[in-house]
Amino acid sequence: MPSFRTMQWAGGKLRLLDQTRLPHEEVYLDLESHEDVARAIREMRVRGAPAIGVAAAYGIALGAAGIVTDDPDLFHSRLDAVCETLLATRPTAVNLAWAVQRMRRVAAAKAPATARQALLAEAQAIEAEDEVSNRRLGTYGAALLPASATVLTHCNAGSLATAGYGTALGVLRAAREQGKQVRVYADETRPLLQGARLTAWELQRDGFCVTLITDSMAGYFIHKGIIDCVIVGADRIAANGDVANKIGTYALAVLAKENRVPFYVAAPTSTIDLATPSGDDIPIEERSPEEVTRVLETPIAPQGVKAANPAFDVTPAQYVTAIITEHGIARPPYMRSLAMIVRGRNREVNRAFK
Amino acid sequence: MPSFRTMQWAGGKLRLLDQTRLPHEEVYLDLESHEDVARAIREMRVRGAPAIGVAAAYGIALGAAGIVTDDPDLFHSRLDAVCETLLATRPTAVNLAWAVQRMRRVAAAKAPATARQALLAEAQAIEAEDEVSNRRLGTYGAALLPASATVLTHCNAGSLATAGYGTALGVLRAAREQGKQVRVYADETRPLLQGARLTAWELQRDGFCVTLITDSMAGYFIHKGIIDCVIVGADRIAANGDVANKIGTYALAVLAKENRVPFYVAAPTSTIDLATPSGDDIPIEERSPEEVTRVLETPIAPQGVKAANPAFDVTPAQYVTAIITEHGIARPPYMRSLAMIVRGRNREVNRAFK
Repeated sequence: MPSFRTMQWAGGKLRLLDQTRLPHEEVYLDLESHEDVARAIREMRVRGAPAIGVAAAYGIALGAAGIVTDDPDLFHSRLDAVCETLLATRPTAVNLAWAVQRMRRVAAAKAPATARQALLAEAQAIEAEDEVSNRRLGTYGAALLPASATVLTHCNAGSLATAGYGTALGVLRAAREQGKQVRVYADETRPLLQGARLTAWELQRDGFCVTLITDSMAGYFIHKGIIDCVIVGADRIAANGDVANKIGTYALAVLAKENRVPFYVAAPTSTIDLATPSGDDIPIEERSPEEVTRVLETPIAPQGVKAANPAFDVTPAQYVTAIITEHGIARPPYMRSLAMIVRGRNREVNRAFK
Repeated sequence: MPSFRTMQWAGGKLRLLDQTRLPHEEVYLDLESHEDVARAIREMRVRGAPAIGVAAAYGIALGAAGIVTDDPDLFHSRLDAVCETLLATRPTAVNLAWAVQRMRRVAAAKAPATARQALLAEAQAIEAEDEVSNRRLGTYGAALLPASATVLTHCNAGSLATAGYGTALGVLRAAREQGKQVRVYADETRPLLQGARLTAWELQRDGFCVTLITDSMAGYFIHKGIIDCVIVGADRIAANGDVANKIGTYALAVLAKENRVPFYVAAPTSTIDLATPSGDDIPIEERSPEEVTRVLETPIAPQGVKAANPAFDVTPAQYVTAIITEHGIARPPYMRSLAMIVRGRNREVNRAFK
C-alpha cells in the first residue's frame, strides 16, 4: 500500500488530502457537508474517476446526516437535491454517476434514520470495494508486463485517483510485488500537471524509479524503443471500448500503435458505461482557459490571448490493446468483451446479495 | 512585416530582443562582443535556427572587430577561436554551422582590415537574404493553403525565429497578404513555452486570430477535423528528408498522418544539410532537467525527481507531406527533390557572383 491516504472517513467527517497543494505541501482538509465535498471535486482537490466516485458517496452520506427531519418525503426530496449537487460537479467521469446511483438505490423508500445509516455504510463499502478491485485489476494487469518493464503513463491514475491502490499505477505496484522490475516515464500532463505534481510525487515516495517528461516528449521515447507499454486510467469507457481519459491520451494511443507498443487502459468496471454506445456520446468537460494561459499561478502567455481547454479526449477503441479490469482483461472486440465483464460482475454482486 | 525587430545592427552593436523576457516584457539587449552573442544563443535569448545563424554571423563580425592586430596569422588564428566559440553554443540547428562556414570563407586569406569589413558586410547579407528567402518561401507555402485555413503550429517559427518574416509563420503572413483567411492553433511548447510566450505574442500583436492550446491538446483538435494543416519550422533537414525540430514535432506529424491532415515543414535552404544522410545522424541537444521540473521559475515537481529533456526530435520523412523552401516546394522522394532544390540555389548564387 502507498504511504499516504487519499481520503479517510473519521469522526463523522471526510478527511481529504488536498491534491491542488501537492507536491510542495501535504495539507488535509476536513469536509463536513456535501457542499464541502462538491466544492472539493469541482476545484479538483480530489480528482481521478474512482476517487471522485468514493468522495461523492461520502458527500451524500454527509448530506443525509445534515438533513434534520424525520419526515420521509421531505428527507427524500432534500436527499435528491444533495445527489444533484454532487452529480453536477463534473461531467465526464462516469464513476460519479455510478456512485450516486448506488447511493440513491440504497436510500430508496427507507425511513430517514435507517437511510442515513445505510448511506454511510454504502459509502464505506464503495471505498473498500474500490481498493479491492484496484488490487485485483493490478494483479491481472501485472501479468501483462515483462519481467523488466519501462512503462509510460499519463496524468495520475494512482493511489491519489482512487481509494488507495491505483489503477494504472496499481498495475505497477502489483508488478513490483510480483518481483518484476518497473521503471516509469511520467508525462507531466498539462494544464494541471497531475503527472509532475501527483504521479511523480506518489511514485518517488513509494520508491519507484520515475523519470518526468513533458507531454511533447512521449513520442520521442516511444519512437526510440525505450517504452515497453503505455498504461493509463480512464474516466469513462463506452460500450464499444472508446475511452475518455485526460487530454493527451489519444495522442499517446496513436503514437503507441504507430510504433507497435501495447496501449493498456486500467479501470474498475465502475468506469465502464454500457449505456454510452460510443465515445461520441461522452460529454467532454471544457475548463477555464486560465488553466492554459497560466501554470499554477504564473501567467505564461500574453494578456488577452484566447485559449481552449478540453479536459479530456476520447481514444477510439481501435487503438486500445486491452482494458484491464478487476473482473479480467477485455480484448477487442470490446462490444462483446466489456458486456461479458460487466455481466460477470453483476452475477458476482447478485451472488453476494443472496 | 511584423511590428517589431528580432535583431538589428546599429552603432557597431547587435541589438537583440530578449526572448526569455517575452511576453511580459519587451527588453532589448545591446551585444558588443562575440562572447555576448554566444551567451545570448546559449541562454536562448535569441533562438530559432535561422535567427541563430544570423546572430552568429554578427557575433563573428563583432569578434573580428575586437581582434586588435594587423598581423594576418594572429588575426586569423584568433578569428578561428571566435568561430569555434559560436559553433559550440548549440548542436542541432545546422544554420549555425552554415553561417559560420560562410563567414569563414569570406575572411579567408584576407588582410585583417579587409576581413573585418567583409565579415560585417557578409553578416548583413545573411540577414537580408534570410528575410528575402522567408518572403519567397512564404509565397510558395501560402499557395498550399485553402482560402480559409485553420493551421496548427508548434514552437515558434516566426519573425522571432528569423531575421524578420518567419518560416512557418511567414507562410501564414503571406497567405494573409494573398487575401486568405487564416486562423491559428498554437501549441504552448513545453518546456520553454515558445508557443505560449512567443508565437501567441507575435501573432496576437500582428492581429491574427490565435488560440493557445497545450501540446497534449493538438491530437484532440486534429482528430476533431478542425485543423486543415500543420506547419512547423525546422532546425535541420537531412538529405533523406528527415526533419529535426522542437521536441513534440514528431508526435504532431504522426497525428496528422493518422488523420490525413497535411504536415508541412517550412525552412530556408540553409536548414537543409545534404552532408547529414538521415535523422539518425543529427545530434539532439539534451538540456537541463530543471527546464522540465520548473515552469519559468516555478517548481512544479517534487524535489529531487529525475527528468529528461531532449530539446528536439526527428520526424521521419515518411510523415512529411512537403518541405517549403525559398527555392520551391520539395515533395517525396526527398533524396532527389532536396538535392535539386539545393543545386538550384547554388546555381543562382553562382550566377549572382558572376
